Amino acid sequence: MLGEMLNKVRETTPLVHNITNYVTVNDVANVLLACGGSPIMSDEPQDVEDITSICGGLNINIGTLNIRSIEGMKLAGKKAAELGHAILLDPVGAGASALRTNTAVSLMEEIPFSVIRGNISEIKTLASGSGTTKGVDADVADAVTEENLDEAVAFAKAFAEKANCVVAITGAIDLVSDGKSCYVIRNGRPEMGKITGTGCQLSGMMTAYITANPEHMLEAAAAAVCVMGLAGEIGFSRMQDGDGNSTYRNRIIDAIYNMDAKTLEEGAKYELR
Amino acid sequence: MLGEMLNKVRETTPLVHNITNYVTVNDVANVLLACGGSPIMSDEPQDVEDITSICGGLNINIGTLNIRSIEGMKLAGKKAAELGHAILLDPVGAGASALRTNTAVSLMEEIPFSVIRGNISEIKTLASGSGTTKGVDADVADAVTEENLDEAVAFAKAFAEKANCVVAITGAIDLVSDGKSCYVIRNGRPEMGKITGTGCQLSGMMTAYITANPEHMLEAAAAAVCVMGLAGEIGFSRMQDGDGNSTYRNRIIDAIYNMDAKTLEEGAKYELR
Amino acid sequence: MLGEMLNKVRETTPLVHNITNYVTVNDVANVLLACGGSPIMSDEPQDVEDITSICGGLNINIGTLNIRSIEGMKLAGKKAAELGHAILLDPVGAGASALRTNTAVSLMEEIPFSVIRGNISEIKTLASGSGTTKGVDADVADAVTEENLDEAVAFAKAFAEKANCVVAITGAIDLVSDGKSCYVIRNGRPEMGKITGTGCQLSGMMTAYITANPEHMLEAAAAAVCVMGLAGEIGFSRMQDGDGNSTYRNRIIDAIYNMDAKTLEEGAKYELR
Repeated sequence: MLGEMLNKVRETTPLVHNITNYVTVNDVANVLLACGGSPIMSDEPQDVEDITSICGGLNINIGTLNIRSIEGMKLAGKKAAELGHAILLDPVGAGASALRTNTAVSLMEEIPFSVIRGNISEIKTLASGSGTTKGVDADVADAVTEENLDEAVAFAKAFAEKANCVVAITGAIDLVSDGKSCYVIRNGRPEMGKITGTGCQLSGMMTAYITANPEHMLEAAAAAVCVMGLAGEIGFSRMQDGDGNSTYRNRIIDAIYNMDAKTLEEGAKYELR
Repeated sequence: MLGEMLNKVRETTPLVHNITNYVTVNDVANVLLACGGSPIMSDEPQDVEDITSICGGLNINIGTLNIRSIEGMKLAGKKAAELGHAILLDPVGAGASALRTNTAVSLMEEIPFSVIRGNISEIKTLASGSGTTKGVDADVADAVTEENLDEAVAFAKAFAEKANCVVAITGAIDLVSDGKSCYVIRNGRPEMGKITGTGCQLSGMMTAYITANPEHMLEAAAAAVCVMGLAGEIGFSRMQDGDGNSTYRNRIIDAIYNMDAKTLEEGAKYELR
Repeated sequence: MLGEMLNKVRETTPLVHNITNYVTVNDVANVLLACGGSPIMSDEPQDVEDITSICGGLNINIGTLNIRSIEGMKLAGKKAAELGHAILLDPVGAGASALRTNTAVSLMEEIPFSVIRGNISEIKTLASGSGTTKGVDADVADAVTEENLDEAVAFAKAFAEKANCVVAITGAIDLVSDGKSCYVIRNGRPEMGKITGTGCQLSGMMTAYITANPEHMLEAAAAAVCVMGLAGEIGFSRMQDGDGNSTYRNRIIDAIYNMDAKTLEEGAKYELR
């Protein structure tokens, strides 16, 4: 099933509009190309509606947001929604500043996201910031571990149901839920945290996956998480003495470029809960 | 002749002012350094005239344009024109949005470009958007192939004459014309399309080439196209099992760094029409 | 002593807020991760005070500045000063445009920087632009060499004393002074100048070093300079036939990633004057 998601991306070359931060944008573009998609970037309010109209999916990432780009996010999001596009939110830094938290929350209110992908802290911020007085996340710690996995899965399901979309919480253990089921994914390497933007890269790739597989949002999002983690494992296996995080970045993107359905099916480590 | 163009860049270290998109800007800077030039980036209207004044050439790339940077492009372009600098336009995404098309067309009206470099779709948009009711491009398909080469060469010449500058149309087959002659260049690899920004990189390098060779704009632009394509071939020959588009990106820039006149003269594949 | 500076960074993982140019920002982020720090980028005036408040240090780099980001720099700088954070200024291009010179000078007037790091031309601009009629730099040439080293050291000390902070002047020979002592550092490779943003990368890393070692600003800044230069030497030693500036960039960041106190202590080439 995950392999079919991958093949669909390679067969359809989904065009993805990205409004994303200027820190990791080049890697996001190269990852989109590596996985079989095609990237376009545009954040100017006067440009985004036209650009999103020629695309199939929209990736909104609020890292290095500014007042102008926030307006671009909203205009693009509404246009993409009108057109029935797949839309992903990456709430980078939600919880770290009022502007980021408020922007993420108001984007959630105004745009019908297909998927929200973030780390546990960002997702917890969205869960509590969405209007509950006591966040549904109240009992979830700041990292998903084997010890708190049951609670974390319950949290992911509850938030996905409430947000009415697929939610992907990534970290040492990744959770992807549509409110009913939850993929628990154990691919990846801790060294990936020493590369800037692996989360942003995943969000870009995931947007290509959900754009190419609109009937299977949950599986497509889970497949993208497995591809990223597995690429992290394959890339790490090719590291040589003296290599560090810069070479590792290249090797991971290379591994995404070379990933095929068979490798994905054999390497993906997940369970459904 | 192409080798002389390259040597002139290495001898004179042309300083190039770039107003370019934030997606590929780092690669553009490293390619400019690799080829023997020197990059400066600035897009703030209050900054661009001073910056362009200390440079020899100006590279305007409209990817991720915004209202503020468009103003910067116009101010820089007019100042560079006053100073007699080489000026290049890369109309990224012309045809994909009204803002991009209109910006490219209005830049062409206001600034005397030395070279316009884009893919066939972008150049066709400019050709038809420049005021003709039936574009000169009406009979040109969306890719230059051996089959439609005669028509494409005629289109390139006609548009170069009309735009009164050198026009470089890049793709599987590249065309570079000043209205009278047309270089038909067959260097490069299809895998280059899987790297973000090889076109932007070429535009940056080409600006260094025309800045260093102001008496030979056509040959300089053609030389830059050959260097890029040949670097794509050399870089590809160094790829190893497991490598992908990220490593390929590095290998191409490395090949530009190591390119010399002899390698260029021997590897350039072109004919003049 | 330099090794202790490095260890402190790895032990404390200083969170650094960067307001920096979009050309080299990705490399700055990866270098911060490589050296043991953690990067956050934000330049929006409505966002920067919150972001800087959760950090320990602030890196202000004026490359690709714009009117909005300048406001962000000032707000962030004042908040960081209130909080007693380590603050670094990288005056990219001071002297190249009026906006850059004036911005750097006015930042110096409004924000109590811990360290200012630039090349000799930028620092000379700041020294003469700070209000003296005859700049303290009057007798210093545009490159620090063995021949003019005595003068250059005197200039570095005088400017550090006047600016009331540590000053790092980097080039073929690097000088780091707090007004009393001056580290004269001879690590590095001339080929590092063929990579965009090694200066920006150093400023990012240096901010992590001074954030982790607030009691030893001079030694921390000097340690960061030695790490960068030594990484340039180690990275160069790993270069293979056909490699160029793109691979060199990766190898330098990799070398920073693998740097330890012992390697630094043994490889650092400096004298105290």
